Amino acid sequence: MTTYQISTELITNKKEKTPADQLGFGQVFTDHMFVMDYVEGQGWVNPTITAYAPIELSPAAMVFHYGQAVFEGLKAYLTEDGEVQLFRPDRNFKRLNDSNKRLCIPAIDEELALNALKELIRVDRDWVPSAPGTSLYIRPFIIATEPYLGVNPAKNYKFMIILSPVGSYYKEGINPVKILVEQHYVRAVVGGTGEAKTAGNYASSLKGSELAAQQGYSQTLWLDGKENKYVEEVGSMNIFFKIDGKVITPALNGSILPGITRDSMIQVLKSKNIPVEERAIAFEEVLTAAKNGTLEEVFGTGTAAVISPVGELKWLDEIIAINDGQIGEVTQMLYDTLLGIQYGTLEDPFGWTIKL
Amino acid sequence: MTTYQISTELITNKKEKTPADQLGFGQVFTDHMFVMDYVEGQGWVNPTITAYAPIELSPAAMVFHYGQAVFEGLKAYLTEDGEVQLFRPDRNFKRLNDSNKRLCIPAIDEELALNALKELIRVDRDWVPSAPGTSLYIRPFIIATEPYLGVNPAKNYKFMIILSPVGSYYKEGINPVKILVEQHYVRAVVGGTGEAKTAGNYASSLKGSELAAQQGYSQTLWLDGKENKYVEEVGSMNIFFKIDGKVITPALNGSILPGITRDSMIQVLKSKNIPVEERAIAFEEVLTAAKNGTLEEVFGTGTAAVISPVGELKWLDEIIAINDGQIGEVTQMLYDTLLGIQYGTLEDPFGWTIKL
Ligand SMILES: Cc1ncc(COP(=O)(O)O)c(C=O)c1O
Ligand SMILES: Cc1ncc(COP(=O)(O)O)c(C=O)c1O
Repeated sequence: MTTYQISTELITNKKEKTPADQLGFGQVFTDHMFVMDYVEGQGWVNPTITAYAPIELSPAAMVFHYGQAVFEGLKAYLTEDGEVQLFRPDRNFKRLNDSNKRLCIPAIDEELALNALKELIRVDRDWVPSAPGTSLYIRPFIIATEPYLGVNPAKNYKFMIILSPVGSYYKEGINPVKILVEQHYVRAVVGGTGEAKTAGNYASSLKGSELAAQQGYSQTLWLDGKENKYVEEVGSMNIFFKIDGKVITPALNGSILPGITRDSMIQVLKSKNIPVEERAIAFEEVLTAAKNGTLEEVFGTGTAAVISPVGELKWLDEIIAINDGQIGEVTQMLYDTLLGIQYGTLEDPFGWTIKL
Repeated sequence: MTTYQISTELITNKKEKTPADQLGFGQVFTDHMFVMDYVEGQGWVNPTITAYAPIELSPAAMVFHYGQAVFEGLKAYLTEDGEVQLFRPDRNFKRLNDSNKRLCIPAIDEELALNALKELIRVDRDWVPSAPGTSLYIRPFIIATEPYLGVNPAKNYKFMIILSPVGSYYKEGINPVKILVEQHYVRAVVGGTGEAKTAGNYASSLKGSELAAQQGYSQTLWLDGKENKYVEEVGSMNIFFKIDGKVITPALNGSILPGITRDSMIQVLKSKNIPVEERAIAFEEVLTAAKNGTLEEVFGTGTAAVISPVGELKWLDEIIAINDGQIGEVTQMLYDTLLGIQYGTLEDPFGWTIKL
């Protein structure tokens, strides 16, 4: 049996809430946060809910130098009957521990983390926004805090959870996005950290995104690092192609993030008897399908972006328009199903949601 | 002409100095540090030398989440006539800007940085240790400080320089090290961040090092990420092989760090008419050379480790003993030459050293 006690230090002066239409993504934070420290020899200690406030770190804290930092992203949703629910949060804490393993960070107690999260949201319950499309974005993360310049796993860490009420991720809403297939830069390679959610993966992706943005594309589609040939994933989404009636998504080969939305959508597709394949997809297969008219839909899946239809792909000099820039039928069905389950307007046959 | 003014806030209570034999590496820090902030729209502002002290950051500071963090490592040496000198510091600030570019961090003024460093060392001059083999390790680094959870380059950064008096990097001293050739994990791939000095590169290397340590090896030799075939570099050193009279080191192919010690040693070898080649080296070539008796020396080069002879390499089940575990002639010559120039006991025909 796990025994732990989360101590709670509530603030007295609550911040003013930002109006729903000004929330944006990840800019507004709630009144409290969860913090727990790792001390070598003692393990994870002092789980505490306290005021959302700056943290103090040594300039030699290892996170600044050797990037031992992992994170998660999930959301809490307000249902029509005023309840707050989470979507598969156990999966996020499990994946956090997978990321920990890759970066030599000590595992957290997943049950404690989930209880801490629930308690934190209860404390900041009035921050869960209610306008359509809004939610409370949850960011658990772990950073190495030991002040030491040797390249070794740190002896001290901080695990924190912060909360941010958010609007939709894409300013464009559910409108199809334009994606550039990256040719030069690589996000991850098998044997690297691509399947973990490490801070460094995102740093390395910025350059490609910057170049894509300069060409008017809002996201980068990454190809594999070995052959620059196979489709991997988008900046913060997994990717799916509907070709000739079948839905195909890259298999979890070790260099792409095992998205929780990806896994959920595969289950939804199967439950509706829509054929779905997880396998390697050379980008040329997508191009061929586009040329012979069998590329029916393309969409991304991710917690922040939900289901994001892709309206255009650019690869070298080829511009591929998908479904006349319209949202495809399967994409729309998945979007409606996912949001329905998340916001509690549809039944949840999979048992994915957890009420506070 | 660049105009800037570095403001200086000196402390009054100096810390006690650690005895030379207890310095270790990167654990003791001096009394002051240099800090400069980047503010979007204003550029780099407020260059300041101030007390070495913790910094305060928002829990949403982007360095914790998306790993925008780059760093450098160089040393200051005390010469016999009591002067303090730096070894090619301009190269480090140039490389810092190369790393900045890769991670979409705004460039720093290299001249300002060098002047700030000199001024900082002057202020903490009594921290430069004098015992043989000791030096003042210098750690310039830049971190993203903007509190925002969007995956974008940050709008705010901190550039800092901290100083740490150090003993030798390897506890073993100049004794040959044992290195394990990593088969499964990958440090970097062409198109990734391997040639930049980013925090994330080191996080991703920890797992391999941990597994190597479990087998009794102090370092990992990384192979290329595409074919797991070509030699890249060691955890914090570039690598050189002397085969049949020729010195060979992997060419700068885009995924290895362009080491300043590497570049310097190539110049020393050329100046002594020792043949040196920069090219791709399959590990099998090393193995073949070992088997036919032409693998004469192996050594690593790096600021922290200086010149580090390699006494043993393990690749799969093959254990390669090098030069009977003795320091080779060329390795010793390079070690003596480099330390001689750095500590001012030898002439510096290359113009590499800069006095304070
Ligand atoms: C690189 C990357 N791929 C995929 C995803 C989608 O994962 P999930 O569906 O668990 O949010 C994310 C976002 O979390 C991501 O950052
Ligand atoms: C990965 C890596 N390779 C090589 C080196 C050697 O570079 P330098 O000689 O500039 O110290 C270092 C250390 O700085 C390093 O971290």
